[in-house]
Amino acid sequence: MKFIAKIAVAAAALAMLASPAMAEKVVKWKLAETWPSTLTPLASPPANLAKMVKEMSGGTFIIKVEGKEKHKAPLGILDMVKGGQYQMGHSGSYYWKGKDISTIFFTTIPFGMTTAEQYAWFYYDDGMKYMQQVYDKFKVLNFPGGNTGVQMGGWFKKEINSLDDLKGLKMRIPGLAGEVFAKLGVNVTNIPAGELYTSLDRGTIDALEWVGPGMDIKMGFHKIAPYYYTGWHEPASEMQFLINKRAFEKLSAEHKAILLTAMKAAAADMYYENFAASANAWEKMKTDFPNIKVKTFPLPVLKAMKKATDELLDSYAAKDPQFKEILESERRFMKKARQWTIISDYKYIQTSMEVE
Amino acid sequence: MKFIAKIAVAAAALAMLASPAMAEKVVKWKLAETWPSTLTPLASPPANLAKMVKEMSGGTFIIKVEGKEKHKAPLGILDMVKGGQYQMGHSGSYYWKGKDISTIFFTTIPFGMTTAEQYAWFYYDDGMKYMQQVYDKFKVLNFPGGNTGVQMGGWFKKEINSLDDLKGLKMRIPGLAGEVFAKLGVNVTNIPAGELYTSLDRGTIDALEWVGPGMDIKMGFHKIAPYYYTGWHEPASEMQFLINKRAFEKLSAEHKAILLTAMKAAAADMYYENFAASANAWEKMKTDFPNIKVKTFPLPVLKAMKKATDELLDSYAAKDPQFKEILESERRFMKKARQWTIISDYKYIQTSMEVE
Repeated sequence: MKFIAKIAVAAAALAMLASPAMAEKVVKWKLAETWPSTLTPLASPPANLAKMVKEMSGGTFIIKVEGKEKHKAPLGILDMVKGGQYQMGHSGSYYWKGKDISTIFFTTIPFGMTTAEQYAWFYYDDGMKYMQQVYDKFKVLNFPGGNTGVQMGGWFKKEINSLDDLKGLKMRIPGLAGEVFAKLGVNVTNIPAGELYTSLDRGTIDALEWVGPGMDIKMGFHKIAPYYYTGWHEPASEMQFLINKRAFEKLSAEHKAILLTAMKAAAADMYYENFAASANAWEKMKTDFPNIKVKTFPLPVLKAMKKATDELLDSYAAKDPQFKEILESERRFMKKARQWTIISDYKYIQTSMEVE
Repeated sequence: MKFIAKIAVAAAALAMLASPAMAEKVVKWKLAETWPSTLTPLASPPANLAKMVKEMSGGTFIIKVEGKEKHKAPLGILDMVKGGQYQMGHSGSYYWKGKDISTIFFTTIPFGMTTAEQYAWFYYDDGMKYMQQVYDKFKVLNFPGGNTGVQMGGWFKKEINSLDDLKGLKMRIPGLAGEVFAKLGVNVTNIPAGELYTSLDRGTIDALEWVGPGMDIKMGFHKIAPYYYTGWHEPASEMQFLINKRAFEKLSAEHKAILLTAMKAAAADMYYENFAASANAWEKMKTDFPNIKVKTFPLPVLKAMKKATDELLDSYAAKDPQFKEILESERRFMKKARQWTIISDYKYIQTSMEVE
């Protein structure tokens, strides 16, 4: 090579270094979510995350979101992130209670904390510490991924007037709430989302729990099960972002910071989105479907649910020291947080109703 | 210059371009906040914002936060951002009601929306649209900057048993709530934070409103004014981030995205921080200061406050078409959002209290 040619090559090499797109290798990640990619608001946090991360990183960090229609493994998210097929996941922590019962605390528990109480526990008490402890054994990192607020207690074909009405009832309700209902004599099953309406219509089940008006009305349950019960079992269901730990550690400091901030903003936004969707759906429901009967379970039924919940939680605590420690933290914080909720938000709403 | 020397110079110039720190000029901004820089949680969003922006941008975007101890103009923030002395500000929108009465909607209004309701209105209804419209005339951009949740109704030396007890009472209470109290015969004043305790102690005022237990207890008001009233006038006070519009437009696309995401995450986090601080302070207050008497205003007083609030809002609407339009949007959204709050959070807390 001639001397001039050598200079040209050297200059070209330096010019490539000078181009940001070439200087920093583009990081490409995949995220698997439990939901179909169109199922807002649950599918919103990953979509918003990917958008924010791409924009903030100037296109040097790309997250491709794959819904369950693509990967076909809605309840395989934790395993796929742990195994590294996906660098990230978006799901619900309580789906992994079979792997570790302590995972339930990072979604919600029956008669547990409200959204504000739980976020305060996560970020300004011990919640995040325990979250990382529990997920450490899977070699994944876990972060809050968006909150639904209070979920409704579900749709029932017949009114529930007493504990006797629960005996032998066939109901789709997952998680710890399902165990509570089972203790009260309900025949509990889990059924995939796509088969819920048909199962209810054909009498395979007599009742089911889904999310809240924002998501329920689209499913059409009200046409065949008109009794819609207020919530007790999922007061603040938090979704989760899962990250493969080794993948995270390989990120640059900037990309780590971008990912952490985007997750926090995306999680907060889902709560706003779902609140608005619920408010809109509730209004529409009252107008378009006046035959829906909104009910609260009778007090003896609720008291039995509370007793069964406490017994279940205590029985898990007796078998599992980590569960016991987190339960104690959760109960300690909730006790004081609830006093503040009652004197602030609850009292304010009560006052506002009285002056009308 | 010899040929070889020319090559060396060219190579050095290219090498400088290849260095990220040189390739991208560091953007240095200043942010002025209404609060002393140590006054958490109000001072937390700017501090968190600056940290996130620095980390996410790899040090190419630096925001220097200056508290009121530095700039000495706590109520000059909007003017300083508008004028470009500071690229950003952190304050409360309702402080600018003298410049434009419509600014109050982006903080809170008496008997208005709760935190969740208001965020839903901001992000998933018309709130943000109106926010930008109102601030456009100042050539600044405005974004949510952190929420206090329900603020307490204030500290009173004597119990309020009737409307007569308000007549002639000297009280420090700013904003629209001050106008409401004035209509009810209260002698309303505003006093800087640093003089509040002395003014209350010496009888210059008989009562005052501050924030909530997380911030109030530190001020010592309970020692001289033991009646602590529940909230009605600031159900969800949102702080604000202000940005000089020309400065924002000069930012790169990456820096714009980084700033927007960091503001959203910082705002959400302040709500969690203040909730935890309030819960902790409430518990401590109950233990350490059992003589504090927590009260709710009698219903006739609250009804008079509500009537005065509606009359004030309607009178502003009659004079200002923009105010009228935003008020109608706010009332429309709140009406449906409140129905959902009552059936979800309110009903859930009520249920939880009954089963105990």
